[in-house]
Amino acid sequence: MKKGFASDNNSGVHPAIFKAMEAANKGHVVGYGDDPFTQKAINVFKEKFGTDTAVFFVFNGTGANVLSLSTVTQSFHSVICAETAHIQEDECGAPEKFTGCKLIPVEPIQGKLTPATIQPHLKGFEFEHHSQPHVISISQVSEMGTVYQVGEIRALAGLAHKNNMLLHMDGARIANAAISLDLDFKEFTVDCGVDILSFGGTKNGMMMGEAVLFFNPGLTLNTKYIRKQSMQLYSKMRFVGAQFLAYFENDLWKKTAIHANNMAKLLRAEVAKIPEIEITQPVDANGIFAIVPREIIEPLQNSFYFYIWDDTKPEVRWMTSFDTTEKEIFEFVAIIKELLTAGSRTFQVR
Amino acid sequence: MKKGFASDNNSGVHPAIFKAMEAANKGHVVGYGDDPFTQKAINVFKEKFGTDTAVFFVFNGTGANVLSLSTVTQSFHSVICAETAHIQEDECGAPEKFTGCKLIPVEPIQGKLTPATIQPHLKGFEFEHHSQPHVISISQVSEMGTVYQVGEIRALAGLAHKNNMLLHMDGARIANAAISLDLDFKEFTVDCGVDILSFGGTKNGMMMGEAVLFFNPGLTLNTKYIRKQSMQLYSKMRFVGAQFLAYFENDLWKKTAIHANNMAKLLRAEVAKIPEIEITQPVDANGIFAIVPREIIEPLQNSFYFYIWDDTKPEVRWMTSFDTTEKEIFEFVAIIKELLTAGSRTFQVR
Amino acid sequence: MKKGFASDNNSGVHPAIFKAMEAANKGHVVGYGDDPFTQKAINVFKEKFGTDTAVFFVFNGTGANVLSLSTVTQSFHSVICAETAHIQEDECGAPEKFTGCKLIPVEPIQGKLTPATIQPHLKGFEFEHHSQPHVISISQVSEMGTVYQVGEIRALAGLAHKNNMLLHMDGARIANAAISLDLDFKEFTVDCGVDILSFGGTKNGMMMGEAVLFFNPGLTLNTKYIRKQSMQLYSKMRFVGAQFLAYFENDLWKKTAIHANNMAKLLRAEVAKIPEIEITQPVDANGIFAIVPREIIEPLQNSFYFYIWDDTKPEVRWMTSFDTTEKEIFEFVAIIKELLTAGSRTFQVR
Amino acid sequence: MKKGFASDNNSGVHPAIFKAMEAANKGHVVGYGDDPFTQKAINVFKEKFGTDTAVFFVFNGTGANVLSLSTVTQSFHSVICAETAHIQEDECGAPEKFTGCKLIPVEPIQGKLTPATIQPHLKGFEFEHHSQPHVISISQVSEMGTVYQVGEIRALAGLAHKNNMLLHMDGARIANAAISLDLDFKEFTVDCGVDILSFGGTKNGMMMGEAVLFFNPGLTLNTKYIRKQSMQLYSKMRFVGAQFLAYFENDLWKKTAIHANNMAKLLRAEVAKIPEIEITQPVDANGIFAIVPREIIEPLQNSFYFYIWDDTKPEVRWMTSFDTTEKEIFEFVAIIKELLTAGSRTFQVR
Repeated sequence: MKKGFASDNNSGVHPAIFKAMEAANKGHVVGYGDDPFTQKAINVFKEKFGTDTAVFFVFNGTGANVLSLSTVTQSFHSVICAETAHIQEDECGAPEKFTGCKLIPVEPIQGKLTPATIQPHLKGFEFEHHSQPHVISISQVSEMGTVYQVGEIRALAGLAHKNNMLLHMDGARIANAAISLDLDFKEFTVDCGVDILSFGGTKNGMMMGEAVLFFNPGLTLNTKYIRKQSMQLYSKMRFVGAQFLAYFENDLWKKTAIHANNMAKLLRAEVAKIPEIEITQPVDANGIFAIVPREIIEPLQNSFYFYIWDDTKPEVRWMTSFDTTEKEIFEFVAIIKELLTAGSRTFQVR
Repeated sequence: MKKGFASDNNSGVHPAIFKAMEAANKGHVVGYGDDPFTQKAINVFKEKFGTDTAVFFVFNGTGANVLSLSTVTQSFHSVICAETAHIQEDECGAPEKFTGCKLIPVEPIQGKLTPATIQPHLKGFEFEHHSQPHVISISQVSEMGTVYQVGEIRALAGLAHKNNMLLHMDGARIANAAISLDLDFKEFTVDCGVDILSFGGTKNGMMMGEAVLFFNPGLTLNTKYIRKQSMQLYSKMRFVGAQFLAYFENDLWKKTAIHANNMAKLLRAEVAKIPEIEITQPVDANGIFAIVPREIIEPLQNSFYFYIWDDTKPEVRWMTSFDTTEKEIFEFVAIIKELLTAGSRTFQVR
Repeated sequence: MKKGFASDNNSGVHPAIFKAMEAANKGHVVGYGDDPFTQKAINVFKEKFGTDTAVFFVFNGTGANVLSLSTVTQSFHSVICAETAHIQEDECGAPEKFTGCKLIPVEPIQGKLTPATIQPHLKGFEFEHHSQPHVISISQVSEMGTVYQVGEIRALAGLAHKNNMLLHMDGARIANAAISLDLDFKEFTVDCGVDILSFGGTKNGMMMGEAVLFFNPGLTLNTKYIRKQSMQLYSKMRFVGAQFLAYFENDLWKKTAIHANNMAKLLRAEVAKIPEIEITQPVDANGIFAIVPREIIEPLQNSFYFYIWDDTKPEVRWMTSFDTTEKEIFEFVAIIKELLTAGSRTFQVR
Repeated sequence: MKKGFASDNNSGVHPAIFKAMEAANKGHVVGYGDDPFTQKAINVFKEKFGTDTAVFFVFNGTGANVLSLSTVTQSFHSVICAETAHIQEDECGAPEKFTGCKLIPVEPIQGKLTPATIQPHLKGFEFEHHSQPHVISISQVSEMGTVYQVGEIRALAGLAHKNNMLLHMDGARIANAAISLDLDFKEFTVDCGVDILSFGGTKNGMMMGEAVLFFNPGLTLNTKYIRKQSMQLYSKMRFVGAQFLAYFENDLWKKTAIHANNMAKLLRAEVAKIPEIEITQPVDANGIFAIVPREIIEPLQNSFYFYIWDDTKPEVRWMTSFDTTEKEIFEFVAIIKELLTAGSRTFQVR
C-alpha cells in the first residue's frame, strides 16, 4: 500500500524483528511470560536501566500507561499531565476508568510541562475534599514532537519528589527522543528521577508490545495482578520477548529511530523553503507540525495520507517512520509545491 | 523447547498463519482497523455468522470477554456463569473491575450450566436492592473440556431471553467445539440464540487476537469506545486481520482443531487402559481431566509439562494442541506406565 | 401509621435520640466532623473498643460496608461472604462497583460461614490469574437472624489471619447480637480478631448514621479520602455525633436492643404453639424466619406488614424493633390463629 | 457555639424543619422511600418543576451530583465543567470514580462557563480515541458566588443540545440563586433547557438530603439501581421527605434564602467602605470573595471563622447563612476595622 505521514504506527514491522519472531516460533513454551524469550528480554532491560528495574510487558501504549498509573495510584489521587497528553486526549478515558483518578490537564508550552505551569495544581494536600496530586506524567517525545531535555526532566522529577509524588514518562516514542538527545535511555529517565516509564516499541518497528518499567521495585508488589486484571497479560508472550531482543540486538532500535528522525529533519529542511508553510513546533524528533494553506490539504492527503491536527488554523501533523524514504520526502515536497502553484494559478484565474 | 500438555496456548503459531502475517507486512496501512486486512477479515466473519454480525477485534480472551460484557451491561447488572468459568476463576476480577457488575457463580454439572441450576438466581428483578441479572455466560468448550450441545444452548438462550437477559458465549476454544459438534459455527451460536460471542483463535494456532461478535447490531452503538477505553484497540491491527484471513482460508482452523481433538481422543483411549488413572470428565474436545496417583505427577511433569487442576483429589488437566503429535502421546503414555510400575516397585520395596 | 414486622428500619427514631439531635441544633459548628459532637462520639467508641480504634462515620449501612472494604482492598482482591450476605444480596453491587473486587458467595449454615465452608475458596494465592482472597466478611446478627458465637468468630479470624486476610463484620444489628451474647461489643469483635466493623445504629433507634471502626490504625491512612470519594462524608456531621452520644448514654442502645430481642422471643414462643407454622432458623436476636401456610400470608400482611423471604417454601421474615409492643405481638398472633381457623373452615366448605 | 462565615453548612437546621421531622417520627412506615412523606415531597417537586419530573432523594450534594452524572453517562463520556466546580475541586474524584468519565475543567469567567469557553472542548465526536463530550455541568449559584442569568443558561443548554449533550445544574445553593434572580425554580432550570438538577437544601436550613431532578423521564429507567449502588438510598427516607415538605411549606426556603442573601448584601456594603479590602467577585447571592490584608486574616478567623480561598492573593470567602444576624455582620465589620487600625499602628511602630 501507499505510504504516508499519518503516523509511525502505519508502518509495518522491521524485517529483522519479524525474523526473530519466526525464530521464536518453535515448539512449546510456558505461557504468560515464563519463557526464555521474555526472561532474556527482561534482562536486557535490566542491563539498560539498572538491575533494580522491574519490567512488565503489555500489549499496547494505552495499556502501558494505564498499568503505570494503576500500579502507583489509588482512586482518590490525581495525575497531572499536558492538555495534549495521550492519556488525556487519545485514550478514551482509559486512565480514569481503570484507576478512578482525576486527570488534571495543564496547558503545555511546546507540548511540554514545566514546574511553573504545574505548581498551581499542587494544592489540597491532606484535604479530604480534594483529589490528592500523586503523579506527574510527561510524554517523551511529547505529542507536539518536542523532546524534554535532561534539565527539564530533572526539574520535574524534583518537583514531584518534593511533593511526595512520582514522575511517569510516556515513552511511546522514547527511541526517537534518545536519538534526539544523543543519550542512552537510562541517562534521561532513571538517572533524571523518572519513576515509571512506558517504553514503546510499536512506533519504531515492532509489531506490538510495550514495556512498563518501574525503577523502584518497591512499587510493583501488585503489578502482576493489575496487569492481568487490566487485560494486558499476553498468553504467547514469547512473541513480545523475541521482538524486544531483536529490537535491542546490534542497536537496531537506534538505526530505525535515527532514520526516522533524519527523515523528519529532511522534510523540515525542505518545507522550510516553502514560504506558504509555517512550521509551528521545534522538530526535535520524527514529527512535524505545520500550518498549510487549507486548499492543498485534501489533495495532498490523497497522495500521502496524514492527519489534520487543528482544523481551525489549519495545522497538520506529518510523522516520519523507520521505513520512510528520502524519495518519498522529495516526492511529497514536490507535490506540495505543485499544489501551491496550481492553487495560485487557480486564484489568478479567478 | 520440549512440548507438553500444559495448555493449547503453549504452542506457537501455525506456519500458514505466520506466512500470512509476513505477507501483510508491506508498506503502510491506516492504523486501528481501517485497513484492508481487517476489513476483509470482518467480512469473512459476516459470511460465516450473518451479515448483521458486528465484529470487533481485540488482543486476547480476557479482553474479548470484558468487551462482550461491557457492551451489554451497566454496573448494577449481574452476570451468571459457572463456578469454573474463565471470567470467574482466571481473569483476576477483570469483569468486575471493568463492568462494575456482580458475577454470580453457579456450580456446574460437567463444566456446564443448565436452566435448572440457573433458575434460583433469576430473582430480584426490578428490586433496586438487588443486582439485576442481565447476562448468562457459558464457555464453549467449557473449562472442564465438555461441549454444550445444540439443545442445551437453545434452552439457555430461551431462559435468558424469557427474562430479558442475554446469552454470552466464551468461545476461547470454539473451533474445538465446532469439530466436536460437527457443525458450522453459526449453527451452535447465532442460530441457537447466542447474543454475543468471544471468538478465540490463539488457542488454535494464532499468535494473538480474538474477535467479539454481536449478533444484534443494535447492541454495539458504543462498542468502539468501550474497546478503546478497555485498552484493546490495536494500532497495527492488520496483523490480526491477516491472521484471521489465513485461519479461515481453506478451513485451516478446521484442520488444526480436528487434529487437536483427535490427539485428545487418542490420549483418552490410551489412558483409559491404565487402571490407576480415572478420567473424570467427558472428553468432548481437546482437554482431558484425570485423577492420577499423586506420586507420579511431578516426575511426569518433568517429561511433559501440565497443570494440576485440583490438588485435593489430585486431578490433572492435559490439553492437546494443533501441534501435538501421535508420537508425543505414545511417549507420554509410556512414561506414565513406567512411572506407575516404578512406583509400585517402590511401594513393594518399602 | 400502622406498625408491622417488615424491618427494624421501618420504625422511627428513639425519642431520647431525637432530643439529643435537637440539643445539638444550636449555633454553628465546623462541618464534616470537626465539631465537638463528632469528636466526643469518636471518643466514646474508643472507650468501648480500645484507644487504637479508628472511627469514621458514614450515612448508611451500605456506605459502611463499602468504606470498610474499600479501605483494605485493591481491585484484584476477592471478598468471601455468605450467599445471604447483605453485601452480596442487598447492595445492588455497590461493593463490586466501588472496590472492583470479586465477591465470592459461600452457602451458609444457618446464615453463618464456617472455616470448613470457606476453606475451598482460599486458593490461587500469588497466582496472577486469580482474584486474591483478602477479606472474609460476616454479618452479626446474620441475615438469617442467627448470631455468631465467640468461638466461631475467633475461628474465622484465625483462618483469615493465617492466610494474611482480614475479617470484616457487618454489624448492622450488632446491638441485638451483643444482647444475645450478653457481651460487651469489644468482647466479640476486636477481642476475637475482627479487623473492621460496620457498626450500625439505624436499625436500633437512630435516624441515620453508622460508624466504621478499624482496629488496626495502620489500615486507615487513606480512609478519609475514600469516605469522601464514596459520597459518605456528611457536612452537618454533628447530627450523627449527637445521635451516637445519646445512643450510648445510660446504655440506651442496650434497652432498645433488649426490648427488640425480647419481643422476638415472645413472638417465637407464641408462634411455636401454632402447629401450622414452622420456625426455620434459631431465633438468636430480633428476627424470626418461618414457613407459614401460603393462603394466610397476604391477609396477614394487610394487618401487620412483613416480607416474604423465600416464596418457594413459602418462608417469611418477621423483624421486631425497639418500639414493638407486647400488645402488637399478641394481636399479630391472634390474627394468625384467626386466619388459620378461617382457612381451615374455607377448606372444609370446599 | 460561635457562629462564623465559613460555610452555610456550618449552620444547623431551621426550627420549622426540625419540628416537621419530629412530627414524622411516629409509628412505622415502609423504608427506602415508599412512605407518605417521601411521596408527598415528590409531588411537591412535580408541582414546582412539572409533572414529568422524576425525583430521587439522596443524602448529600456529592451524592446528588454523582447520581445526576451516572444516570446519563457511560464511562467513555466526558463532562465539561468549570475549573472551580464542586465536582472538579471538592468531591475527591467521586465523579470519575463512580462514572469512569473524564472531567474537562474549563477556566471560568467570574465562576461561570460560557459557550465560547466551552466550544474548543467540543471535539472528537465519533472518534473512538477521544472521550465523548456528553454533559455540560454548571453550578447555580457558582462556586464564586455568582449567578447564571436566564439567557446564559439558555445559551449553554442550546449549545449542549445542539451537540446531543445534556445540561446538568449543581444547585447546592439553588434557593439563593432563585432569590437573586427573583424567579421560580422552574423558570431558570427546566424552562431554560436544564436536563438534570441537583437540588440542594442542606445549605439553606435542612439537616441533610438533596433531590436529583430529571426533566426527561426517559433518562431515569435505571436511576433507582444507580442510587442504591452509589450508597445513596436512605432507609428512613421519611425524614428527608418530611424536611422537604417543611422546606416548601409557606415558602420557608424563600425566607431563609432571602435572609442569607440580604446578609451578604449588607456585608458587601459595609466591607465596600473599607479601602484595604477588595471585593473580587459580583455578590449575587450569599457568598463574598475578597482580598484582605494578610495580617488580619488569622486574628479575624479567631473571632468569626471563615476559609482562605486563594492563599496567594490572599483571597478569602465569607458565606452568610439563614441564621446569620445583622448584629454579627456589624460585629464582624467592626473587628475588621479594629484589626486594620491595630495593624497600621503596628506598622507605624515598626
